[in-house]
Amino acid sequence: MSVSYIEQIAGEIQPLNRKAVEAAARHLDQLTKPPGSLGRLEEVAKQLAGITGEIAPELGKKAVVVMAGDHGVCEEGVSAFPAEVTPQMVLNFLNGGAAVNVLSRHTGADVVCVDIGVNSDLEHPLLYSRKVRKGTRNMAKEAAMTPEETVQAIRTGVELVKELAGSGYTMFATGEMGIGNTTASSALLAVLTGTDIGVSVGRGTGIDDAKLLHKQAVIERAIAVNKPDADNPLDVLAKVGGLEIAGLTGVILGAALYRCPIVIDGFISSAAALVASRIAPLSASYMIASHLSQEQGHARLLEAVGLSPMLRMDMRLGEGTGAVLAFPLIEAAVKIMKEMATFASAGVSSADNH
Amino acid sequence: MSVSYIEQIAGEIQPLNRKAVEAAARHLDQLTKPPGSLGRLEEVAKQLAGITGEIAPELGKKAVVVMAGDHGVCEEGVSAFPAEVTPQMVLNFLNGGAAVNVLSRHTGADVVCVDIGVNSDLEHPLLYSRKVRKGTRNMAKEAAMTPEETVQAIRTGVELVKELAGSGYTMFATGEMGIGNTTASSALLAVLTGTDIGVSVGRGTGIDDAKLLHKQAVIERAIAVNKPDADNPLDVLAKVGGLEIAGLTGVILGAALYRCPIVIDGFISSAAALVASRIAPLSASYMIASHLSQEQGHARLLEAVGLSPMLRMDMRLGEGTGAVLAFPLIEAAVKIMKEMATFASAGVSSADNH
Repeated sequence: MSVSYIEQIAGEIQPLNRKAVEAAARHLDQLTKPPGSLGRLEEVAKQLAGITGEIAPELGKKAVVVMAGDHGVCEEGVSAFPAEVTPQMVLNFLNGGAAVNVLSRHTGADVVCVDIGVNSDLEHPLLYSRKVRKGTRNMAKEAAMTPEETVQAIRTGVELVKELAGSGYTMFATGEMGIGNTTASSALLAVLTGTDIGVSVGRGTGIDDAKLLHKQAVIERAIAVNKPDADNPLDVLAKVGGLEIAGLTGVILGAALYRCPIVIDGFISSAAALVASRIAPLSASYMIASHLSQEQGHARLLEAVGLSPMLRMDMRLGEGTGAVLAFPLIEAAVKIMKEMATFASAGVSSADNH
Repeated sequence: MSVSYIEQIAGEIQPLNRKAVEAAARHLDQLTKPPGSLGRLEEVAKQLAGITGEIAPELGKKAVVVMAGDHGVCEEGVSAFPAEVTPQMVLNFLNGGAAVNVLSRHTGADVVCVDIGVNSDLEHPLLYSRKVRKGTRNMAKEAAMTPEETVQAIRTGVELVKELAGSGYTMFATGEMGIGNTTASSALLAVLTGTDIGVSVGRGTGIDDAKLLHKQAVIERAIAVNKPDADNPLDVLAKVGGLEIAGLTGVILGAALYRCPIVIDGFISSAAALVASRIAPLSASYMIASHLSQEQGHARLLEAVGLSPMLRMDMRLGEGTGAVLAFPLIEAAVKIMKEMATFASAGVSSADNH
């Protein structure tokens, strides 16, 4: 279990199938619509062709992987909610009552709930118990994780995707739960992109002005104490990241490795996407951004990965709630490829051809 | 059939049920999430409560009403496609091969295809034949419609909603087909809001720079020739609008009258929404904006009606394609109200309560 494992995974990720992308583009231009007029649906259709090698792939079962972990930095008082909410919400996920459960049932996705670092003893028949440790250390005082813990959390994500792909899942979304995890994500954004703390740090679940200033100061202290190397994504992730963020980094790398589309949720998921894209730039080709969160700094994070969101719902809940809402849009793109008439088959005149 | 019919309809539209909106807001704040964190889903849930009077209404059958009509102004050469495409695409809708058919099947909506003004003799068992006249007159030379034709087209929309609501439809979306109808919509935007022609006129189905300048000049001529009264929405609609735009204005007014949510598609549909909101300001409370079109001027149109779109798909096809993609988001809002656990039922600590 070492850094060489990460290098190996990164080296095995392949680019998209260019011929399939081109074939999809040719098919799209024969359909009864002005060229390009379906916008992002056309982009997604081409991307799915590049990922799967087929211009109208059968999308099978889909899962939102919700990684849960606690954050030592919560002892600094950075969140509107107490840390005990993390295990409470995990039980809510397992009992089907959280927003991500409702929205996943609505869009036909399964919720895969993973304890990768909850600071509590959890048992439930539906829980994927993959605890690396009981919460991170307080990043304001020391590194949140050791390099070994970080690699183990990433590997957990990669291997979970392998396992799920083996049981018929073909499309994934990222989700998370962890009181304090906007603090870690803001720190990752600040260090990896050089974004000012005033922009990278937002209100999370809803803190007031005074607590926002305090949260910014805590993150500045964490960066000063740990001195993360901005050119080394694993070092940054270990020092100011989190267990669920590392786990999601692994889920994203795993999806790219096993050639599955991976739908990125909001601010925390996008921080994992940024780390994944720094570890393996080709992994970004497998990502589909779902929504623009109301959390300050999310637009900057997506921009740094090169992603553009389809939904503007002003959501800021996490859990994967925005990502699962994008599943029907992605499935719509495939149906356009499969079911739309062509100019020739429908007897419709095309542009400048009269 | 007169202007007094329109005044009567406008006068019968009622405001939302404020008590139901407040009850929905109280329920939302008990659910296991930070207050307001589901963003637009919460806004839509409250709006649906205000429309239906129930905090978790049963949404029944839904229809996208696709109004088709031709435009006399096409003889000025304003579109990338020939006018014959209007009837060809109507047949494509009736045969189920167009994008709106694919996306409506995907989201469980029925396509109601209406010939309100196609310049061709169309017959098909699935077609709603409601032709007011065979295309509008050339607005660059004279008024597109008489006041009587305009009122008849609006009434057609209102009565169609009444008929569909009577057969179990509870939610509607707007859609349209009409080569030349971005020209009419741009003219409506320019006159009703005073927006500069350089902003209100875009590329429609995809015209080049030279044709864009020509389209702008044609619209300026139409406004100069007809001198529409910006304070009289019916006068503007008659002089520089279109039959399908008037029909959709009626669909929107009808939805508000019969207390059904009405999902607004792109540029042309939003022009109808603007006219409806000027005829009956209360009708805007029943509208849900779906997507931001790539057509220049759409953002300005939505802003003038006071609507904010949920989807940013860079689409510019019309037909109702963006609107039907929003149906799953609206249904998601209702499921949040029905299925999510409360803090009390799930044993989750709320904010600042520890």
